[in-house]
Amino acid sequence: MPRKIYVPVGHHYIVEASGCNPKIIGSVEKVQDILVKAAEIAGARVWAISFSKFPPSGVSGVVVISESHISTHTWPEMRYAALDIYTCGSHVDPEKAVVYAVEAFGASTSHITEITRGIDEGDWKFFHSFITWEEDFRKHMKEKSEKK
Amino acid sequence: MPRKIYVPVGHHYIVEASGCNPKIIGSVEKVQDILVKAAEIAGARVWAISFSKFPPSGVSGVVVISESHISTHTWPEMRYAALDIYTCGSHVDPEKAVVYAVEAFGASTSHITEITRGIDEGDWKFFHSFITWEEDFRKHMKEKSEKK
Repeated sequence: MPRKIYVPVGHHYIVEASGCNPKIIGSVEKVQDILVKAAEIAGARVWAISFSKFPPSGVSGVVVISESHISTHTWPEMRYAALDIYTCGSHVDPEKAVVYAVEAFGASTSHITEITRGIDEGDWKFFHSFITWEEDFRKHMKEKSEKK
Repeated sequence: MPRKIYVPVGHHYIVEASGCNPKIIGSVEKVQDILVKAAEIAGARVWAISFSKFPPSGVSGVVVISESHISTHTWPEMRYAALDIYTCGSHVDPEKAVVYAVEAFGASTSHITEITRGIDEGDWKFFHSFITWEEDFRKHMKEKSEKK
């Protein structure tokens, strides 16, 4: 069913990641490695990457993946990273990429909105819907390790 | 007041643009020109650009602008473009960029959510807030021309 590829419905995760490790989110190399790995984990094909430093110590980066993208802009001095993971198609799993990237940044908590984009009712008038939640990653990881 | 530059508060417009001109949103060159111009209109400095075709006839493109980005993914066969305009700092005007890009795409209507990102209460636990609305651009433009 090749038609499925062309359906524009996409899942866009808007993430505010707090308490990140400044040594990780302040490094262009580390941030780039994490976002490219996140794309692989989502099952997306990487088309282009662009990463750079911005003042005073942040990293801006985008990974273009077929008909969508993964991006981040970081403020290591506040341990904060703004992260976007947007994927289209049923063959990808963006949620795994979100969990991987946020944990790799060393975030303690995240405020997340998942936007479902490119929805229509057959009339090509497109809209989006969203849900928001908080995740305490360190708590989650502590609970996981306590269960072992 | 150079400190202002480093405040991570940003305005991220998530736009579903419908009824676009397929000849415009199906052209890599035209879409790239529009997004670069949108960045200029917002008053943002362009750091990097990446644009490409994706099957069957869409365009994927990202303009990295300092600590944020402008991106689009288009489906000309459905006259649909998913557009993101995300800017940080008080020296930029992203709303002007949204209006310019959506009108340049030839969109008839747009479903828009504006997300204010990187908000905190002094504790570095960042979150976002949002508002959503619809814009009928052709109607808006018709009204403008009728008033002349």
